[in-house]
Amino acid sequence: MITDNLRGVVPPVCTPLTPDLDVDVASLTRLVDFLLDAGVHGLFVLGSTSEVAFLPDGHRQRVVETVAGHVAGQVPVLAGAIDMTTLRVLDHARAAEKAGADGIVATAPFYTRTHPAEIDRHFRLLADGLDLPIYAYDLPVSVHIKLPAELVLDLAADRVLAGLKDSSGDDGALRTILLRARELTGFSVLTGSELTVDSALHMGAHGVVPGLGNVDPHGYVRLYQHCLAGDWDAAAREQDRLVELFGLVDAGDPNRIGRGSSALGAFKAALYLRGVIDCPVTAPPQLPLTDNEISLVRDRLVAAGLG
Amino acid sequence: MITDNLRGVVPPVCTPLTPDLDVDVASLTRLVDFLLDAGVHGLFVLGSTSEVAFLPDGHRQRVVETVAGHVAGQVPVLAGAIDMTTLRVLDHARAAEKAGADGIVATAPFYTRTHPAEIDRHFRLLADGLDLPIYAYDLPVSVHIKLPAELVLDLAADRVLAGLKDSSGDDGALRTILLRARELTGFSVLTGSELTVDSALHMGAHGVVPGLGNVDPHGYVRLYQHCLAGDWDAAAREQDRLVELFGLVDAGDPNRIGRGSSALGAFKAALYLRGVIDCPVTAPPQLPLTDNEISLVRDRLVAAGLG
Amino acid sequence: MITDNLRGVVPPVCTPLTPDLDVDVASLTRLVDFLLDAGVHGLFVLGSTSEVAFLPDGHRQRVVETVAGHVAGQVPVLAGAIDMTTLRVLDHARAAEKAGADGIVATAPFYTRTHPAEIDRHFRLLADGLDLPIYAYDLPVSVHIKLPAELVLDLAADRVLAGLKDSSGDDGALRTILLRARELTGFSVLTGSELTVDSALHMGAHGVVPGLGNVDPHGYVRLYQHCLAGDWDAAAREQDRLVELFGLVDAGDPNRIGRGSSALGAFKAALYLRGVIDCPVTAPPQLPLTDNEISLVRDRLVAAGLG
Amino acid sequence: MITDNLRGVVPPVCTPLTPDLDVDVASLTRLVDFLLDAGVHGLFVLGSTSEVAFLPDGHRQRVVETVAGHVAGQVPVLAGAIDMTTLRVLDHARAAEKAGADGIVATAPFYTRTHPAEIDRHFRLLADGLDLPIYAYDLPVSVHIKLPAELVLDLAADRVLAGLKDSSGDDGALRTILLRARELTGFSVLTGSELTVDSALHMGAHGVVPGLGNVDPHGYVRLYQHCLAGDWDAAAREQDRLVELFGLVDAGDPNRIGRGSSALGAFKAALYLRGVIDCPVTAPPQLPLTDNEISLVRDRLVAAGLG
Repeated sequence: MITDNLRGVVPPVCTPLTPDLDVDVASLTRLVDFLLDAGVHGLFVLGSTSEVAFLPDGHRQRVVETVAGHVAGQVPVLAGAIDMTTLRVLDHARAAEKAGADGIVATAPFYTRTHPAEIDRHFRLLADGLDLPIYAYDLPVSVHIKLPAELVLDLAADRVLAGLKDSSGDDGALRTILLRARELTGFSVLTGSELTVDSALHMGAHGVVPGLGNVDPHGYVRLYQHCLAGDWDAAAREQDRLVELFGLVDAGDPNRIGRGSSALGAFKAALYLRGVIDCPVTAPPQLPLTDNEISLVRDRLVAAGLG
Repeated sequence: MITDNLRGVVPPVCTPLTPDLDVDVASLTRLVDFLLDAGVHGLFVLGSTSEVAFLPDGHRQRVVETVAGHVAGQVPVLAGAIDMTTLRVLDHARAAEKAGADGIVATAPFYTRTHPAEIDRHFRLLADGLDLPIYAYDLPVSVHIKLPAELVLDLAADRVLAGLKDSSGDDGALRTILLRARELTGFSVLTGSELTVDSALHMGAHGVVPGLGNVDPHGYVRLYQHCLAGDWDAAAREQDRLVELFGLVDAGDPNRIGRGSSALGAFKAALYLRGVIDCPVTAPPQLPLTDNEISLVRDRLVAAGLG
Repeated sequence: MITDNLRGVVPPVCTPLTPDLDVDVASLTRLVDFLLDAGVHGLFVLGSTSEVAFLPDGHRQRVVETVAGHVAGQVPVLAGAIDMTTLRVLDHARAAEKAGADGIVATAPFYTRTHPAEIDRHFRLLADGLDLPIYAYDLPVSVHIKLPAELVLDLAADRVLAGLKDSSGDDGALRTILLRARELTGFSVLTGSELTVDSALHMGAHGVVPGLGNVDPHGYVRLYQHCLAGDWDAAAREQDRLVELFGLVDAGDPNRIGRGSSALGAFKAALYLRGVIDCPVTAPPQLPLTDNEISLVRDRLVAAGLG
Repeated sequence: MITDNLRGVVPPVCTPLTPDLDVDVASLTRLVDFLLDAGVHGLFVLGSTSEVAFLPDGHRQRVVETVAGHVAGQVPVLAGAIDMTTLRVLDHARAAEKAGADGIVATAPFYTRTHPAEIDRHFRLLADGLDLPIYAYDLPVSVHIKLPAELVLDLAADRVLAGLKDSSGDDGALRTILLRARELTGFSVLTGSELTVDSALHMGAHGVVPGLGNVDPHGYVRLYQHCLAGDWDAAAREQDRLVELFGLVDAGDPNRIGRGSSALGAFKAALYLRGVIDCPVTAPPQLPLTDNEISLVRDRLVAAGLG
């Protein structure tokens, strides 16, 4: 199914944890159902929103098995293979493949100091070593490098990459890639932005991977459909509502906890408040939101009509 | 043995690989003997110079087993537990402990956006979960954050940390820590700099973890001994010779390969040229040095009297 | 005239220089006529595209006098007051006011390490010291800080700022500001992006300050009018043509000259090739484009129908 | 006098201001006497510690005239010509020359995106346009680029540069430059570090430009003399005392004011408390220290024996 272009709303699935930090399989399954019922077009497990950076290998495997098993082919399931360099990424990707993933999402090397020619080699070696389609994950806030457009386009032209998940926030660069990728078949470009989905789809992006899509998948599906229908005014109104809702990521006091902990904690708090998951805990060393901060999340839900 | 302060020359041991990218156990053992014969005071496996970011878990385990087994208690063997966040680091650290390591070296979280309070929590959770002493690894070039002095000193005072490996290159900050750490017992501060070892020891650092110490361990042992003896002029002369030798890390053309690949490739080329290891290959996606670039390494060895 | 919201296409005007590096007043006047004839709605002198960072105070004054004098009130003329901190910016702003500018564009402090509370104070002191409306210039690539949304909105609510020129490239943050600025009257948000103008206007931005608008002002005016008319498909086609044309900024070899020199050199080369200015020289220490690189600029012009 | 190598303690002179933000000439003169009486070997006006980034051109001129006039050739007076690019730096440098400076200190271009070849051109154009000796100022925290060692050494070998003021904090890179600069005559390397002066002099640096030298010039002169005498133990003790004193730069609450404001405010508060200057005000938009924070400065002075 994934040999065609991946399109639509593909949420990066949160990883619910039990109070003692195991994968909460029941909550995860319920979350998957919540997303599928809303009409999402694919799922991305083990992305940043999934707290992949915080999950040990055992947790990672359980997540892929749980989600791929439960989805059972209804929509494609992409799995992040997030690690520092090629051989380590290959290990994760093979484990995800065995666990049932339909595609692999991988970043450029990080922690190391890598030349663009080595990033190119990295993705080519991944493609050589794997059977599944590979999606490049452009995430400068974590990887501390932006994937150069030429590099992505060369890899796409050589069919090393099946797609790009662009979380760079740089929509000018995204547009350049979209324009030049138009003649390429089988290359899917997904924006990771929660805030500029209508813009990205208007430019020609094929879909969106919104972290906030865990909390309000129905909103993102509506937004996508408005865009497909060319109703850009309705799309803008839906997007604006989601921009307001996205304010929940700032619930955590920046003098107290990290911006990542605030965002991931707020997504989980919202899923908990909406009754989808049993426990809003995030993985260490992230600090949890306070009760007051969780109230701010509740306020945002209410204001967005989700309370 | 490691309950006393760790002191002296503790090289971060290169990881020799076979042409098909397995751990070259014979070469690794030979390298360990080369270092021990030179009189080093400890070994640090699975650090940046060891290509830890490039090694799959299987390789990592084989390295610790090989080195800890071969050293058999002659000197302490520290092992890097290098991964993004707490639970993943704990997994690596427990594996290293089982494989025979005497201490664990860990960075702050990376890839994620982490608040200092969360870095603090990270190290405290590591200490709670492990029996081995923990050394904080300050490596802003990889982790993209500098460990704050107050944080390190608090963790040291609370005996969460047994020491600090400072590879920040910021000797002013190092001095501040050294000054304030003076009253602490059992806290060992090692500089990761190849170039300012005499300065760091003069300020009160307890030892050095020099990547270049793979290539010229005798030089670093002499340098350390001059410092111990208070012969700062002799120390400066030895240090200056090593600064010249260190120029080999720039052998690789920066328009072609990464600075990491150049440095690691040069260390391994030098070990190969000196007859210590069988194959200078580095792990993917690093690009290898060219023959011309390896000649530059040879020139540096000759100039330093190691040809 | 500028008391109403500034709207539309407001190109940052290139500063043509003579071969001996004086302001080329005749070429500058011709460029202004070229832009006005195309129907632009305002002019921004002494911005980054104007090489403001390279121009001595005498040049700066001549530019404002020339442009404001020639325009003579047909459209508003904004002037950059680009310097490191408050008192220096005030000096530039007062000189620009005397020379006839209608509004002032200023960044946060740079070179210094400044707290957001101090950035806030900076803009308030500027407003206290000046009669002209002040536009905040968000340019992280130069200033090395992104203006926080809350800060901008507070200053807008307090009528310290008349508007924002957003060259951050972060359209998600831009949308958040636009959404929250909706209830504010007299606050004008202009995108500095050449590549996402239709997106920005669709989100509610009031106008655009495109460096490439020097080269193809007619294109940006058409694009703006398509957006005003709600013809988003025609807008996307025009924008896509301009994205292709924008490729000229990469004419210069990155192994040889800076990205700024490449872009500014390409804009001036294009204006020279189009017969608008007499000499494409850029200010030192920028290195000039080679003949081959200028050919690449010509190719882009031809492909965009401007050859 | 400056044709010989510049050596010794060369404090970057604070710029005392009146409550209404003019240059306080009387206090400045008193500060110069305070420094000369302590035995400093040169003065550096219009550096970062002088708040050069905050001073309008009129203030800058008054500072150079005041200090150069008062010093009257007893020691060399260097002046910072701090601006974004070549032509602007030339204007400042010529003004400083007219006002009596003996040498010019200039950074690489900032605010712009500059290639190393353009930095090279920048310094060569400065040398072509000026009669005074030029010192390169390596200050990555402000300029956001580190001057490459090869670039500095090439410019030194071609006698474009008379020296380097290294405020990079990277003592490994400093040592590499010092080693390779040994055969060059007439090239003076000064460290900008307050904290590693003995180390830098031990490596072969010619002198030091310590901001804290405003507050305790006698300490830095003693430290320099111990180093000259090869009494490294006494040097380390003096340096350690100064490291403790340097803690005053952190007096300002980081959640409230910038790190620059804290450091500059603390230096001026200390000078005020020591009776050297009349008013501790810093230039806008810097926020002032609170009374409690000034008490912390007083505590540090007392602890260092200066209370």
